[in-house]
Amino acid sequence: MINKLIEEISKKNAPIVVGLDPNLSMIPEHIMKKAIEEKGETLEAAAEAVFLFNKGIIDSTYDLIPAVKPQIAMYEQFGVPGVAAFKKTVDYAKEKGLVIIGDVKRGDIGSTSTAYAIGHLGSIKIGNTEIVPFDEDFATVNPYLGSDGVKPFIDVCKERNKGIFVLVKTSNPSSGEFQDREIDGRPLYELVGEKVREWGDSFMGDSYSYVGAVVGATYPEMGAKLRKIMPRTLILVPGYGAQGGKGSDLKAFFNEDKLGAIVNSSRGIIAAYKQEKYSKCGGENYADASRLAVEDMLLDIRTAVGLA
Amino acid sequence: MINKLIEEISKKNAPIVVGLDPNLSMIPEHIMKKAIEEKGETLEAAAEAVFLFNKGIIDSTYDLIPAVKPQIAMYEQFGVPGVAAFKKTVDYAKEKGLVIIGDVKRGDIGSTSTAYAIGHLGSIKIGNTEIVPFDEDFATVNPYLGSDGVKPFIDVCKERNKGIFVLVKTSNPSSGEFQDREIDGRPLYELVGEKVREWGDSFMGDSYSYVGAVVGATYPEMGAKLRKIMPRTLILVPGYGAQGGKGSDLKAFFNEDKLGAIVNSSRGIIAAYKQEKYSKCGGENYADASRLAVEDMLLDIRTAVGLA
Repeated sequence: MINKLIEEISKKNAPIVVGLDPNLSMIPEHIMKKAIEEKGETLEAAAEAVFLFNKGIIDSTYDLIPAVKPQIAMYEQFGVPGVAAFKKTVDYAKEKGLVIIGDVKRGDIGSTSTAYAIGHLGSIKIGNTEIVPFDEDFATVNPYLGSDGVKPFIDVCKERNKGIFVLVKTSNPSSGEFQDREIDGRPLYELVGEKVREWGDSFMGDSYSYVGAVVGATYPEMGAKLRKIMPRTLILVPGYGAQGGKGSDLKAFFNEDKLGAIVNSSRGIIAAYKQEKYSKCGGENYADASRLAVEDMLLDIRTAVGLA
Repeated sequence: MINKLIEEISKKNAPIVVGLDPNLSMIPEHIMKKAIEEKGETLEAAAEAVFLFNKGIIDSTYDLIPAVKPQIAMYEQFGVPGVAAFKKTVDYAKEKGLVIIGDVKRGDIGSTSTAYAIGHLGSIKIGNTEIVPFDEDFATVNPYLGSDGVKPFIDVCKERNKGIFVLVKTSNPSSGEFQDREIDGRPLYELVGEKVREWGDSFMGDSYSYVGAVVGATYPEMGAKLRKIMPRTLILVPGYGAQGGKGSDLKAFFNEDKLGAIVNSSRGIIAAYKQEKYSKCGGENYADASRLAVEDMLLDIRTAVGLA
């Protein structure tokens, strides 16, 4: 799956991923109204609206992008029907040939981590039938519990050629509270980065490892350092756009092969129709605004990275 | 909710919680067989078996215990139907008067943490209707992303008197890989413990805070230190029993009021019928074995802590 992701990034000349993180406030009125007419003021209506909203964005952008990254929190907020909409989104994006990065930030220990890994990336035997539960291609993983928490994910990934992205340095303002604290003169995120390289060395694709890292666009200097610590690690870079990360900050996250990073934008793409710049599209044509925003993001990033 | 939890612990003289973490291998044959007969070899069958298994354990132990702690990973491994069984378990345990600690170990930033908090502890407005999605009473939270990740949970908790338990020092062997690393001469888990106290001070119940901590039974010396750092924090203690934590190790986690900790056992209770000691119950009467195991655990812990 890491080979497919790298290949799609190269083919589409697009080291980007669209974060499908819909909040109700982003969903255009005509979609929400129709869902409520059909299903009442219920979690089912919200979940249906979220799926239809996603479907519009996928339909209008899938030829430009290699992957989508649904953020499961935005679906869990609608309970069980929301989680069902997450699964429908995964399946639909896959039909369109997209790689799915499940932004689930799971992390536990031993058999519990195995259970998360099975649920999101693996398969489970019920009687004599092997079933794939959520079937994302990658999942994000929280490393706070140490190797016991991460290795079960890697074991499950090896069975089905799936991958993970481990949180190393997150994009938020308070990420330094623990991640930047110095241990023997070096910040915690560097130690985590070294572990990611170690875990990744045990599970390599053709050029990059199945074990990736998350490093926020908002910290380009740390990104440059982590780039060197983890040379064969694909870095998933959140924080571009709405969170303040700029195209010019991104070069540091890439290798000399002009690969090695995949930049996420969520709000900046999926709620583009709410920005002044794209407002002429209007809510009815929100998906057209998303396509324009993807094109602008691609131009910005290709320029910054020096991609033709 | 923290007041209710403390009250129930006192009333039942039972500072324990039963972890509802079922793997298929724990489910007695008669339950699994019936579920597959009804629903085929499907995720729905597994989910139904898990719920019925839980129901048996809840029915046979609810009068002895203040709370249950379903581990959502064990449900996510069965996809959307598994998550529905999680919700059914939460609802059923609540009907029986139990406090629900959702062991979800979520953690993200800003509006994403808010979405997790809404999903598990809060409510959401669809049209003009306010709906509670999963409606647990407490959730476990991962602190790796810092205050930005934890505060949105606290904000949602304040609206509905719910609480959280923040991971401080986990029970697994490799938890020290990052958590024990020294920062200015003190381990990371102590800094996290201090943050938990700080977050907790802003949201106090009558005697304990709505912001609790997770500290593993397998590290009693660290538990004693953290007990002092966070005097008004209820400590959720995993790792008793199957993971090696003993009753005699537990005193350190309690305050002089003989409160302040709640000890979890999962496998040791729910799969008790598989232990030599309780094997006479057999798979058909697995729930009787669970009750006996709860009684033995209570005796062990009351003795260790000096509860009458």
